[in-house]
Amino acid sequence: MLSLMKGYSVVARQSTSKHLRGTCSGVSSLSSIISRSFGAHGSFSTMIFRQLFDRESCTYTYLLADPTTKEAVLIDPVIEHAERDAKLVNELGLDLKYVMNTHMHADHITGTGLLKKLVPGCQSLISQSSGATADVYVDHGDTVKFGNQTLEVRSTPGHTNGCVTYVNHDIKSAFTGDALLIRGCGRTDFQEGSSDTLYNSVHSQIFTLPDDYMLYPAHDYRGQMVTSVAEEKSFNPRLTKSKEEFIDIMTNLGLPYPNKIDISLPANKVCGLYNLPDDLAKKLE
Amino acid sequence: MLSLMKGYSVVARQSTSKHLRGTCSGVSSLSSIISRSFGAHGSFSTMIFRQLFDRESCTYTYLLADPTTKEAVLIDPVIEHAERDAKLVNELGLDLKYVMNTHMHADHITGTGLLKKLVPGCQSLISQSSGATADVYVDHGDTVKFGNQTLEVRSTPGHTNGCVTYVNHDIKSAFTGDALLIRGCGRTDFQEGSSDTLYNSVHSQIFTLPDDYMLYPAHDYRGQMVTSVAEEKSFNPRLTKSKEEFIDIMTNLGLPYPNKIDISLPANKVCGLYNLPDDLAKKLE
Repeated sequence: MLSLMKGYSVVARQSTSKHLRGTCSGVSSLSSIISRSFGAHGSFSTMIFRQLFDRESCTYTYLLADPTTKEAVLIDPVIEHAERDAKLVNELGLDLKYVMNTHMHADHITGTGLLKKLVPGCQSLISQSSGATADVYVDHGDTVKFGNQTLEVRSTPGHTNGCVTYVNHDIKSAFTGDALLIRGCGRTDFQEGSSDTLYNSVHSQIFTLPDDYMLYPAHDYRGQMVTSVAEEKSFNPRLTKSKEEFIDIMTNLGLPYPNKIDISLPANKVCGLYNLPDDLAKKLE
Repeated sequence: MLSLMKGYSVVARQSTSKHLRGTCSGVSSLSSIISRSFGAHGSFSTMIFRQLFDRESCTYTYLLADPTTKEAVLIDPVIEHAERDAKLVNELGLDLKYVMNTHMHADHITGTGLLKKLVPGCQSLISQSSGATADVYVDHGDTVKFGNQTLEVRSTPGHTNGCVTYVNHDIKSAFTGDALLIRGCGRTDFQEGSSDTLYNSVHSQIFTLPDDYMLYPAHDYRGQMVTSVAEEKSFNPRLTKSKEEFIDIMTNLGLPYPNKIDISLPANKVCGLYNLPDDLAKKLE
């Protein structure tokens, strides 16, 4: 079946290219058309950027690509949407280099494993301290390169030990996983969580970024999609408090047992390929 | 209660400004920090831009603002999130000028009426042919101005008679309402819908925009947030077909009776202030 998947992928991409030649007036790739410029205060750079959403777990997945080389990364994909994401990568004519996670998720099964089958050639990437297996491991201070773009890895533990934030300085953006959410943060009451550690992570690694950096979280439950360092330093109802007050808030959240944790963690330890529910396991057969 | 709401709004804004003075190192407004640059192929302009989501109806709401003058517009707000949207407007220090709709929605109650109470001074805006009442009516060819920014009004009927698309040429983006969805389009089987008319609208008013224009729809049901003219001209499974094939596809969709249409349409005719469900009516008392 893996070879069939490979065939499917190659055929789909060829078909896309052929289709584009017919409809885009001689332009060879959609990705050269739709790249957007990002920046503020005079800085200027170009990136293909898409934010995607899973309504069930309220997870955001991010597709970033260099429009010149077409090399792309997917951050925090969800298994139920792996086919959607692979289709978009193909339609945009991108070369998916890494499928990467900000941490080992407890609330959904990662799309990493299925994407590796749907888009042959890409590699999985996660932090060394996440406890999950992957093709490539990163640590604090490492950089993830795709095309002419770079993501800086910043260790931001507290929600889990292995949480990292990926920072792209060209588009002045950071992908914060569950360390910092919009006007909130990830819970710290399971999976090696520590409110003390999370507070230090956010204040030392995220709030020290320039005020105009945009912050893209792994989740939002209220229909918000992006925030900024300036906003969270001003309006985050937990992280603008003292560390003692923060720890007190986090200790008394009274959250229910995490949804899906019992199936997500074992699966996510091996890139979402282990002990999957029947309907999802079939996709990997 | 209106005066109380006014008081709330003024207090909130004052409180925000005071808070910002304390946390943002002398910068007088968040909106001057978080404006983003948009553009492609060398063009370059700046806008505050936020896409927001309602998970129940899968509706996207858009906040656009000129970072210099702070004047802002909200496109297609949802009543259940009016307080979220008003809070964001206040936090970013914006001056909300128009609360505008792409058409009279059938699947959710607009947040327009409640936002007019929460953010005194803003005006409602919709197309003359929508059949809804509003403070300001627009027609094809009109422009909506906020600060140094302009939205061009393009009539794109077919889902309803009054559907319009708002185009901002500076950020090369169009807000297509239900005329064009990502790899789809709005239904045409109720509320004066016409597949023939919709096909003509999309081909003459949206597909004629430059290929690199980004298209922001009023809805997406698969977690996709934005597309481009080039993509939809290549991959839209309905609108890349001939008009005859398109009409045939639309005639045979077999969709269920629209959710909420019986409460949404009467309410949206008067900006969402008429005959509201009890829990929502209380917010307006």
